[in-house]
Amino acid sequence: MFVKVITPRGQDYSQWYVDVVTKAELMDYTPVKGCMVIRPTGYALWEAIHDGLDTRFKATGHVNAYFPLFIPQEYLRREAEHFEGFTPQVAWVTRGGGEELAEPLAVRPTSEAIIGPIYAKWIQSYRDLPILINQWCNVVRWEKATRPFLRTTEFLWQEGHTCHRTEAEAQEETLKMLEIYREFIEGSLAIPVIPGLKSESEKFAGAHRTYCIEALMSDGRALQAGTSHHLGQHFAKVFDINFLDQDGQLKPVWQTSWGVTTRLIGAIVMVHGDDRGLVLPPRVAPTQVVVVPIPSDTDAELVAGGVGSVRGALERAVYEGPVVGGPAGPVRFKVDDRAEYTPGWKFNDWEMRGVPLRLEVGPRDVKAGQVMAVRRDTGVKVKVSADPSTLGTTISDILASIQGNLYEKARRFRDENTHFAGSVEEIGQIMEGERGFVLAAWCGKAECEREIKDKTGATLRCLPLPGHPAPLLNEGQARIESGGRCALCGGQARHLAYFARAY
Amino acid sequence: MFVKVITPRGQDYSQWYVDVVTKAELMDYTPVKGCMVIRPTGYALWEAIHDGLDTRFKATGHVNAYFPLFIPQEYLRREAEHFEGFTPQVAWVTRGGGEELAEPLAVRPTSEAIIGPIYAKWIQSYRDLPILINQWCNVVRWEKATRPFLRTTEFLWQEGHTCHRTEAEAQEETLKMLEIYREFIEGSLAIPVIPGLKSESEKFAGAHRTYCIEALMSDGRALQAGTSHHLGQHFAKVFDINFLDQDGQLKPVWQTSWGVTTRLIGAIVMVHGDDRGLVLPPRVAPTQVVVVPIPSDTDAELVAGGVGSVRGALERAVYEGPVVGGPAGPVRFKVDDRAEYTPGWKFNDWEMRGVPLRLEVGPRDVKAGQVMAVRRDTGVKVKVSADPSTLGTTISDILASIQGNLYEKARRFRDENTHFAGSVEEIGQIMEGERGFVLAAWCGKAECEREIKDKTGATLRCLPLPGHPAPLLNEGQARIESGGRCALCGGQARHLAYFARAY
Repeated sequence: MFVKVITPRGQDYSQWYVDVVTKAELMDYTPVKGCMVIRPTGYALWEAIHDGLDTRFKATGHVNAYFPLFIPQEYLRREAEHFEGFTPQVAWVTRGGGEELAEPLAVRPTSEAIIGPIYAKWIQSYRDLPILINQWCNVVRWEKATRPFLRTTEFLWQEGHTCHRTEAEAQEETLKMLEIYREFIEGSLAIPVIPGLKSESEKFAGAHRTYCIEALMSDGRALQAGTSHHLGQHFAKVFDINFLDQDGQLKPVWQTSWGVTTRLIGAIVMVHGDDRGLVLPPRVAPTQVVVVPIPSDTDAELVAGGVGSVRGALERAVYEGPVVGGPAGPVRFKVDDRAEYTPGWKFNDWEMRGVPLRLEVGPRDVKAGQVMAVRRDTGVKVKVSADPSTLGTTISDILASIQGNLYEKARRFRDENTHFAGSVEEIGQIMEGERGFVLAAWCGKAECEREIKDKTGATLRCLPLPGHPAPLLNEGQARIESGGRCALCGGQARHLAYFARAY
Repeated sequence: MFVKVITPRGQDYSQWYVDVVTKAELMDYTPVKGCMVIRPTGYALWEAIHDGLDTRFKATGHVNAYFPLFIPQEYLRREAEHFEGFTPQVAWVTRGGGEELAEPLAVRPTSEAIIGPIYAKWIQSYRDLPILINQWCNVVRWEKATRPFLRTTEFLWQEGHTCHRTEAEAQEETLKMLEIYREFIEGSLAIPVIPGLKSESEKFAGAHRTYCIEALMSDGRALQAGTSHHLGQHFAKVFDINFLDQDGQLKPVWQTSWGVTTRLIGAIVMVHGDDRGLVLPPRVAPTQVVVVPIPSDTDAELVAGGVGSVRGALERAVYEGPVVGGPAGPVRFKVDDRAEYTPGWKFNDWEMRGVPLRLEVGPRDVKAGQVMAVRRDTGVKVKVSADPSTLGTTISDILASIQGNLYEKARRFRDENTHFAGSVEEIGQIMEGERGFVLAAWCGKAECEREIKDKTGATLRCLPLPGHPAPLLNEGQARIESGGRCALCGGQARHLAYFARAY
């Protein structure tokens, strides 16, 4: 029996990705075009993301609810820009209960258009505000070309939908949720992100303003990892979500919406994975430690005893969960004592599945009172004391070190792959070469943004936010202050923007 | 301002139910026919049900996964009985991405027909068994007449889908999951249930055998609270879910599926609620305790101090969660210090919302070092010591007493409303009167079952399981052993069966 072979990244990155997500059993293809099954290991990652974010949402006063899967066509039509943006991707239910429906029902691509009329019923007065509701659910967007986790016809996500009395409150909420995403994705998924504002042409259909966090994958392409929209009063006006304010005036509410999806699982794969397969950050890894006994004909009992002692220590060990600063939980470990596989096969198999730490227990280790610990992130092997009174702490320290190292490694890669470009030609050269993020000055005109995209394949990922550290940003600001010019038209630069080819 | 009025149960039970679920803000109607929105309080109940069951599923070796929302028509057709049973209720997607689909996609009414072909890919050998997978998701069944939580076009549920090597293992799994449902619903939702076997005509479309748990609502109607199906090899044969057994033979697997839905929220309402509104069992109540200050012009500071002290004690208090015997969590409480409502209004409002325990803190209480504790289940008021070192324990003891009392009260009601009937006329009389469960002898013929239903409106709820206590069962068994006769045809009785009018 051979461990399933993973195509090297250098040879074919797309195939490498598909190999990893299928062979590590995160997902599988199904008979439904464009729809995947999220297998137990992939779903356990989603549960960790759910738990980490849900705890943060609740700690900031949000509650969960559940709105209908279906949206009557008439409601989806109300906000014109929204309808136009989503209608090419909608799946329509036209028959139900054996009859043709009088009006087709959209399977929700996002829920603004069904939540709008419901909020209009619930909100009368300023006393009913703010509304801070989140929903965990499935959504459907018809896709021609799909890719596991990154772009599938059906996917899982959470969508927050809030209503506020003032524009300032809505703005504060929009940025608060963006910051929750940033902190969770950096702290728990070990993925460094750049928080920023989308340009007009990249914003959410119907939004006033879209903020996002952008991550860099190991092939030099960017991935939008989460979005937070200030919706303004666009939906409030078409759905009559009005409230009687303290001054006796009837006013439309100010709204936000924000979401992350199962594509975060794809980001974990592409940021941390290597040619051996998946690499999982310990905070969210469904299995953090695997114990592999090295069998011995002469010392079988000795090894069994050593494994038993390690198991006992691991059962008492604790490590941080997906909430940074939150309660620690039991270490999630497996003992792989299957007789039908060799230790070498198991090493490769568990490495391919991304388990952060492997403990090897052989007869010589047991005699020496030691365990061999092998880190998935660096491959480094260290002998650690098997003393059950210290092993648990040793393990959780190594897990913490792996978590930190994965983040640092990804941040270094991202920073090394971020370049200035003064012209569209330079952007083009970088995109034809190693790719990554390009920081460039931009005049703010949509024509220039479009032309850069047409000529280089790079889209404007975001305008970085003041006060948030991001690669090359300080130098960039200095340049723009000393009279920077738009990379395309050479006109006066109004913004610094990150460009990249993106998923 | 008046507290919203609830129609008395004796006047119009259906209206009472709708009043409670809407005014306690568990749900609301939506512009989508037959689909409801589950509001935050209702959804928090679902989260408690999720957490309680998910913990039990994982403790018994199950993992979660996510399968597609859509099922190609061809797959739904494969198992003929299954297709026939579900097709009248299916919603069909016929357009997507701006085009007519070549083959319509069913929005899943249940997932056997999409999971089947996927399991067929995953299972090769006896080493791949058992498969113990559960899914939390939404499903859609087109309904002509809907009722909040009890029967809605879209609802939330969990569906377990397992595969086994032998028939005996599948049977064991089927009964194990039924027992998990029974223990959770009785222990955490405080709803007594009768576990039993469905008759052939009431079983799941495509199942070999359907087990269920049946509960009695306070209007004397039964509600199926959960089902666990032994699927036999029906789906394995049509989807080619085969494995190479130890003996080298290729064999179809044995399967089970099992589920509970958001209708459990309706059961909580109808089992525990009263004319004042909702009554929530403490283990799953989103808010377990509400503190209402009794304001005083002269002693405002005194009351504020007393409330502060109670708040401090509650912040340190713990109570059992939805897992009986599982870890205790912080007591979930609210302090209602809104100035615009009177204490009397708040009392009524929180009673309507079903909060298990109210603590009143007034100037005289504070002076006496006491707090007035008012139980929602009995209305009994007791003065308890406000000493912060004991208040937390006092509160969690009262919550435990409420939890136990709700179960006992419901069990007593169920037992008092279960009667023997020796003839179809007797069943009819009971159904025209107080209803409830009827235990009757049955010859086992489907014609007799149907005629009883036609004549009395009562359906066969279940054949009770040996070894599980159930009302009148011992006496019933004695009767049948001494030559019982079928309540309809007078032929030899083969079974004891519970009959009831049902939701």
